Amino acid sequence: MKTGILTIGNELMNGRTVDTNSSFIAREVNQQGWHVEAIMSVGDDFKAIKNRLNYLLPLTDAVICTGGLGPTADDITTAAIAQAFDLPLYTDESVLHGIKERFAKYNLRWIENNAKQAMFPQGAEIIANPVGTAAGFVLNIKGKLIFVIPGVPAETKRMLLEGVIPVLRRYFPQNEQYSAKQTIKTFGLSEAAVDDALKDINFNSLGVIIGFYPVFPENHLVLISRRKTLKETQDKLKMARDEITKRLKKYIFHYGEETLEEIVAALLIEKKMTLAVAESCTGGLISNRLTNIAGSSAFFERGIVTYSNAAKIKLLDVPADGIEKYGAVSEETARLMAEGIRKIAGTDLGLSATGIAGPTGGSVDKPVGTVYLALSDSAQTICAHHVFRWDRKRNKHVFSEVALIMIKDFLQGKGQ
Amino acid sequence: MKTGILTIGNELMNGRTVDTNSSFIAREVNQQGWHVEAIMSVGDDFKAIKNRLNYLLPLTDAVICTGGLGPTADDITTAAIAQAFDLPLYTDESVLHGIKERFAKYNLRWIENNAKQAMFPQGAEIIANPVGTAAGFVLNIKGKLIFVIPGVPAETKRMLLEGVIPVLRRYFPQNEQYSAKQTIKTFGLSEAAVDDALKDINFNSLGVIIGFYPVFPENHLVLISRRKTLKETQDKLKMARDEITKRLKKYIFHYGEETLEEIVAALLIEKKMTLAVAESCTGGLISNRLTNIAGSSAFFERGIVTYSNAAKIKLLDVPADGIEKYGAVSEETARLMAEGIRKIAGTDLGLSATGIAGPTGGSVDKPVGTVYLALSDSAQTICAHHVFRWDRKRNKHVFSEVALIMIKDFLQGKGQ
Repeated sequence: MKTGILTIGNELMNGRTVDTNSSFIAREVNQQGWHVEAIMSVGDDFKAIKNRLNYLLPLTDAVICTGGLGPTADDITTAAIAQAFDLPLYTDESVLHGIKERFAKYNLRWIENNAKQAMFPQGAEIIANPVGTAAGFVLNIKGKLIFVIPGVPAETKRMLLEGVIPVLRRYFPQNEQYSAKQTIKTFGLSEAAVDDALKDINFNSLGVIIGFYPVFPENHLVLISRRKTLKETQDKLKMARDEITKRLKKYIFHYGEETLEEIVAALLIEKKMTLAVAESCTGGLISNRLTNIAGSSAFFERGIVTYSNAAKIKLLDVPADGIEKYGAVSEETARLMAEGIRKIAGTDLGLSATGIAGPTGGSVDKPVGTVYLALSDSAQTICAHHVFRWDRKRNKHVFSEVALIMIKDFLQGKGQ
Repeated sequence: MKTGILTIGNELMNGRTVDTNSSFIAREVNQQGWHVEAIMSVGDDFKAIKNRLNYLLPLTDAVICTGGLGPTADDITTAAIAQAFDLPLYTDESVLHGIKERFAKYNLRWIENNAKQAMFPQGAEIIANPVGTAAGFVLNIKGKLIFVIPGVPAETKRMLLEGVIPVLRRYFPQNEQYSAKQTIKTFGLSEAAVDDALKDINFNSLGVIIGFYPVFPENHLVLISRRKTLKETQDKLKMARDEITKRLKKYIFHYGEETLEEIVAALLIEKKMTLAVAESCTGGLISNRLTNIAGSSAFFERGIVTYSNAAKIKLLDVPADGIEKYGAVSEETARLMAEGIRKIAGTDLGLSATGIAGPTGGSVDKPVGTVYLALSDSAQTICAHHVFRWDRKRNKHVFSEVALIMIKDFLQGKGQ
């Protein structure tokens, strides 16, 4: 089944509003196993709306329109669609009654142009709006469906899920009843290299759809399997996952939707362990990422951003002669920082990062992009060293990424 | 001049990615005084790309396409456009050389499929990519222009502004020779409220185009004046700026392009002042934003993320009975934190933030979204209190925003 999406509104054409409805609708339609053939936006314009619908209908089985259902003069979607297909408009008394009740409930003054929201093209099946005054509708135009729902994202979402998709399922019952999805998250390879590593896998013959989603500095793969039986659906998905794992094992850090922060937080909470972080080059980013997780106070005791050597010496108990001997950016200083913060904070783990985010401060031995990370518990301190080649902000981001992966691997018993 | 926008990529059709490029392009095109006639998205599909272009070209003078210029097998935009217009592909040696140099510079392994990014349809004028490997191009198809640039938003933005718009201006010269631009950054009003406050200004009669750019949690206004003489251009711009200032004065924090972090950093460096930051609810975000600025080590001495009360007591010298009496989230504790870190770090300024980012931890008196901020120098400590209603991450963001504005206002002698 092929669908088209048409979002309507001048605010889309002048760039005032980012169209988030299209991606939401597309995702839900895809999850049903249907195809999105085209996505379009158009202004509040009779001729243009008609023109776009006449282009979309032959390409698709159903078009989902959003926007232009408000009470003001520039909301013309219903009238434009009625005109495009030569349908007269009528007032639905029950919808009108509902709008008036809503006005009374919220103590709003009734203005006659609100009655416009109770008008529909003849033949329309009404789609209720559980969260606003603008009802939607669906028309059957010679076997093609045209859905119209409001463009306010909260209303679009509710009415798509509760109104549009149930009607679509009634018109287009599905063969493949089962679907399953697997997200695989990788770090350390470019998108092109991931693609290259997987190019000999025939996903088509497995009946699995693969999608690549770069989310700096990670690359995510999403597998979707859709078959007639649950077992077959799951078996094919597992085969695809196993083939990918064979080729990318070293770079896969997670199977699932969770973010790296969420994974680390869940591991720390599960193991009832606490953490303190001493950051230099990352400037607070590691602490910030960990404290983005609700409930992080259960494991996150403190973070210290020691930009000056004095702060390292005083706050982390790093000996001044150690910094002098090895340099602030060195394995030794990283180890001393991690051990220092763990002891001072009294936590189970101490993490440190010291490096050169750039754009200046690099040398031949320690170029911009160099980072030393250390993780200390009561038994040992492990250290890692990387050199990246991004700009300052992305270096900070990728430093924080390897720091979080280091904690994750340690807690999962991987690595050193 | 009428333009069409065509964003290309399966990630748009399955809803994994929200298309932010279309609104960015639409905004910039509108700012030039041109019209956006249609916006479309299409998957990585030869037939569909051809079909969409053939629909868009008769409606418009130029179509701007983004996406599908990567090195992987599903990146087919260039090949699809060449096929649609019966143009052979050729390899541009200078682009190829540039890509290979980039790979060498970043120490990336060369894979032969990357050479694909140096192939263009015959007759293409190449548009350089200053931030990535994928060059863009423009084709003149019987007087209609087709632009193709990458879909990675950072690349789309740079190449639109530096490549596409200059070529469009060459093809569609404007009468007005002079142009001037003024960015005005506001914080504290919703986009709708800004729009409402300015609705009585007739920008058209001033000959000034206004663009709205929400960049959470800020709203940016961009004024563009384009006239035949330099003086008139500047005069009209100033008139529009003054009208806006009259209505939004309280909410304007900057006239210009600089980020809030950059403004604060420049002020601290200019005044040769140092800063230490004590964060609770913001979890390192204030430190992270300040250290995103190259050269921040000149003013940023240390940041401390004190999630536990023990850390506040030990690291900031906040008396335990003070926290007990007033609560960790209170004006008194914020003041003690700011004063404590300033003294301990030996800096000119101490900044603190304590609050409740959510989603839990709120009470009737201090709901989720409450924050207390304090800024201390040797003479005084000022404090601010806000309640916001966002989710955890956005609360953290908006807390850090008011903290940075507080430093800025203080250094500029505004406020208390």
